[in-house]
Amino acid sequence: MRIVTSDIQLKTSGHSETVDITSSVEKNLRATGLKEGTANIFSVGSTAGLTTLEFEPGAVKDLTLMFEKLVPENGRYHHEDAWHDGNGYAHVRSALLKTSLSVPFSEGRLILGTWQQIVFLDFDNRPRKRKIVTQFIGE
Amino acid sequence: MRIVTSDIQLKTSGHSETVDITSSVEKNLRATGLKEGTANIFSVGSTAGLTTLEFEPGAVKDLTLMFEKLVPENGRYHHEDAWHDGNGYAHVRSALLKTSLSVPFSEGRLILGTWQQIVFLDFDNRPRKRKIVTQFIGE
Amino acid sequence: MRIVTSDIQLKTSGHSETVDITSSVEKNLRATGLKEGTANIFSVGSTAGLTTLEFEPGAVKDLTLMFEKLVPENGRYHHEDAWHDGNGYAHVRSALLKTSLSVPFSEGRLILGTWQQIVFLDFDNRPRKRKIVTQFIGE
Repeated sequence: MRIVTSDIQLKTSGHSETVDITSSVEKNLRATGLKEGTANIFSVGSTAGLTTLEFEPGAVKDLTLMFEKLVPENGRYHHEDAWHDGNGYAHVRSALLKTSLSVPFSEGRLILGTWQQIVFLDFDNRPRKRKIVTQFIGE
Repeated sequence: MRIVTSDIQLKTSGHSETVDITSSVEKNLRATGLKEGTANIFSVGSTAGLTTLEFEPGAVKDLTLMFEKLVPENGRYHHEDAWHDGNGYAHVRSALLKTSLSVPFSEGRLILGTWQQIVFLDFDNRPRKRKIVTQFIGE
Repeated sequence: MRIVTSDIQLKTSGHSETVDITSSVEKNLRATGLKEGTANIFSVGSTAGLTTLEFEPGAVKDLTLMFEKLVPENGRYHHEDAWHDGNGYAHVRSALLKTSLSVPFSEGRLILGTWQQIVFLDFDNRPRKRKIVTQFIGE
């Protein structure tokens, strides 16, 4: 058993930009040489989130619209009272979607469905540099 | 420390059918002989999800109705433009609930509340055969 | 590689009380002596949840209000038919937010954003004693 910690660096434009990070996670997995185990993926910061999705434009748009319906960007947020930076909605969306995701791997490959990708959503209201930690535990 | 990968096979009818998989996870755990560690559970595919719930008919119905309220089955989804298979809602619900869940175990038993079960929700709009990966890391 | 299981004991007042448990998780981590790995955090019970959030009063209030909008405390819940204890909303919120969270650590410290805390939300409608399992896998 070994544990290997690496990361993925992203530049995003915010506003629920949805990035398919599957190939980046696979690349980091290959670099470890591990064959069987769990990939623990964690988005550092409180205005983004991680999940899996069929990464095609329609489903991406549907997910974005769902977040806009549930937690509107232009709603009234008390977080605004502290910071006045207009991203209260992003904090709520991130807390709802959460910043951790675990994906198993076997024979050196992530176990995912054919149409299931690992996606990062940046909910913030401005361009950001993001760090996503990828930690692989296995053998 | 060891890692053991196994799975659970299910036939589901979709439409948010909610399946209590606790005993199946426990069975796979016992087969490993591991006593202390983490069970990483992962649903393969992009139209289902995993969580914990008090598995009784009322709470199951309440959770199903919540998903219907937040992400209606008969809503307008752009995913439909790509596939015309009527399950756009299922992709959005799956991305919201997410397909991974981690549960600790100790003395060879999952650490769960008395009324806390591990449940699989199949959001798709047709019967499916499903594979849920159960991966146990521990000693 | 080692695995260490410990816990956090809390007394909460319910009604979406939001508790910053970051320092408690850090304390349990330090007690392990582990330097690099994953903290798997799990809330025992079916009426609470775990996530990350910028822990300041405004964002806490915003997240609480979102849950009240999506899953109102005074809504009609079928869970009520079984137990008549008025906390059907809490079960639905817990299933939506989920009770597991994984956070990586490195050099003996949790890898979190500057304004990203680990929070426990107790959705129940009465004071509770809570147990949160913290399990550290690493080396």
